[in-house]
Amino acid sequence: MRFNIIAKYGDARVCLLGTRRGSIKTPTFMPVATLGTVKAVSTDELKEMGAEILLCNTYHLYLRPGADTIASLGGIHKFINWDRTILTDSGGFQVYSLSALRKVEEGGVHFKSHLDGSMHFIGPKEAMAIQSLLGSDIAMVFDECPPYPSSYEYAEQSLRLTTKWAAQCKEVSKKSQDFLEQRQALFGISQGSVFKDLRERGIEELIGMGFDGYAVGGVSVGEPKELMHELIYFTAPLLPADKPRYLLGIGDPRDVLIAVEAGFDMFDCVMPTRNARNGTLFTSRGRISIKRTEFKSDSAPLDPACDCYTCRHYSRGYLRHIFLSKEILSMRLNTIHNLRFYFNFFRNMRKSIVESTFSEFKKQWESIL
Amino acid sequence: MRFNIIAKYGDARVCLLGTRRGSIKTPTFMPVATLGTVKAVSTDELKEMGAEILLCNTYHLYLRPGADTIASLGGIHKFINWDRTILTDSGGFQVYSLSALRKVEEGGVHFKSHLDGSMHFIGPKEAMAIQSLLGSDIAMVFDECPPYPSSYEYAEQSLRLTTKWAAQCKEVSKKSQDFLEQRQALFGISQGSVFKDLRERGIEELIGMGFDGYAVGGVSVGEPKELMHELIYFTAPLLPADKPRYLLGIGDPRDVLIAVEAGFDMFDCVMPTRNARNGTLFTSRGRISIKRTEFKSDSAPLDPACDCYTCRHYSRGYLRHIFLSKEILSMRLNTIHNLRFYFNFFRNMRKSIVESTFSEFKKQWESIL
Repeated sequence: MRFNIIAKYGDARVCLLGTRRGSIKTPTFMPVATLGTVKAVSTDELKEMGAEILLCNTYHLYLRPGADTIASLGGIHKFINWDRTILTDSGGFQVYSLSALRKVEEGGVHFKSHLDGSMHFIGPKEAMAIQSLLGSDIAMVFDECPPYPSSYEYAEQSLRLTTKWAAQCKEVSKKSQDFLEQRQALFGISQGSVFKDLRERGIEELIGMGFDGYAVGGVSVGEPKELMHELIYFTAPLLPADKPRYLLGIGDPRDVLIAVEAGFDMFDCVMPTRNARNGTLFTSRGRISIKRTEFKSDSAPLDPACDCYTCRHYSRGYLRHIFLSKEILSMRLNTIHNLRFYFNFFRNMRKSIVESTFSEFKKQWESIL
Repeated sequence: MRFNIIAKYGDARVCLLGTRRGSIKTPTFMPVATLGTVKAVSTDELKEMGAEILLCNTYHLYLRPGADTIASLGGIHKFINWDRTILTDSGGFQVYSLSALRKVEEGGVHFKSHLDGSMHFIGPKEAMAIQSLLGSDIAMVFDECPPYPSSYEYAEQSLRLTTKWAAQCKEVSKKSQDFLEQRQALFGISQGSVFKDLRERGIEELIGMGFDGYAVGGVSVGEPKELMHELIYFTAPLLPADKPRYLLGIGDPRDVLIAVEAGFDMFDCVMPTRNARNGTLFTSRGRISIKRTEFKSDSAPLDPACDCYTCRHYSRGYLRHIFLSKEILSMRLNTIHNLRFYFNFFRNMRKSIVESTFSEFKKQWESIL
């Protein structure tokens, strides 16, 4: 995996990340294709909007339709009709957040499927095997994500497991024929809850193992915003500067601005897509709800400053009407708009870093969003 | 409105119907855009599939968002982003089938909205005014649709009203500035339940008024299939040969074959779109349910003989997976497939009429579908 820094402004940076399926300009936003589709839009639309990389959820695809099924259908790219880069998470976070029951052991986690109650086991080896079957371009190590708040003792025990599992994932990545043949990259994940010494220790151990990129997990799991921002500023400089830095699950534009300022490169979040389906839309003048009565006979586009398909073809009046009528097209047009907003936001943010106007960019958007 | 017969095979015919927004090859299928969107697909997709004309429901659009709202947003074409032909029904059928309570009077129908229980009144004048506000290319007269079974007495009384209202709609169409300026065509509707003498009398009276086209309503409202087919064969030759003949609400391909044989030209139905959302798909080898376990690891397209977007890009295995996962994309890809199947079916049917092979075409498809 290639990774070149193109421009810097303070700790913020613009980089080029190269995988076997194309190059990605960072800071980048990865739409979430949980079950193999970014909800309400097609992969052609994602390309047109400017998406360069998607995230698929290992936990979900493992349970349904099954990693072996996807492998037999030619792998995740062919399955979902997307020839650009795909990153798969390891399933660790979903085991923690979705499964009805879980029992953590030294070798991995026993958990109950949220779909049918069946029992499953995933550990580092299983997570790597599943991600190899899927055939993603970037795989993630299997981690344990402590809830907030956690005691120091719990967080330390959990970190010990996360570190051990990371080492085991790294071993697999060096030996697995499937992994090597597919040239899959592997990212490590920092845990340690809100405890800075644990974060420091964990990251040091990850760096010792040597990964293609480094992620920070266990943020935005319920802690106050201030604490989250503190952790972002604290962890970023601990991660190697010559590798991509990925902040897991963060996507509120206000948090993204802080994380980019701290030096993070990669982001994923369901916010733009979920908000879209609920009728909350990002515009150059702030967030709006498409339900508002004032839009009933409004012939203007959602955001006159926007170049998305939705804004080029439909009025606020129509978008309000199909949202209130619960039409499927509403979710699609709203999702297209919000994702295009995100891609434009990220593109302009990169531009501001190159042109040394990132501070103004950050200030401007913080006051709007 | 122009109307030219291009080819005939028995009573079946291929015609060109010209409106101010383009020409339509008949027999034609009109997808139903109830509330201003054909559920799950975009107007760009409809164009790519080959749609030349859409049907919008006056009753639904009158209640939500309101005809005046649509007029203030530039009319139905601009509102829904469709520059080809639009036919609006008169609302008569929905008043009969959807409203919680209705009271028929000489001047029209009082009814309760199925949305919020509010009371409304639509008669011939109101139906024409609403359709003028919408600005459709083809408007329909306001009719009363008797249920099945109906007594002869009820059907006769109902037909008397339908005829009277048709005459009033025709009057409006000759005098209304809006109607004339928009060059809206107006179709009459035959009612009379299953009673042939009533059908005959009604149609004679409609022809006396002189419409741009003639529709047959009140079929497929619960009567046995044989009776429905008998009515189709009975009414078609009563309608003027030099005007388009429209069979309301019929769209099962087996019924379409019979109606085309009888001499009908225009069809609308929610069958292909509704079936798609329920996972029932039309293929060159018959109807299939995408849920079937055998499709789990099937890498073949839905229908290898199909040229639709879905069949060109996705496997049965993927389509089954996203259907079971209740993904929005599933409804869209299935709808694209079913509508493309319909447009191909109609195109090949026209070809068979031109090439005098319609009998074989009909026999072949009757055995498949």
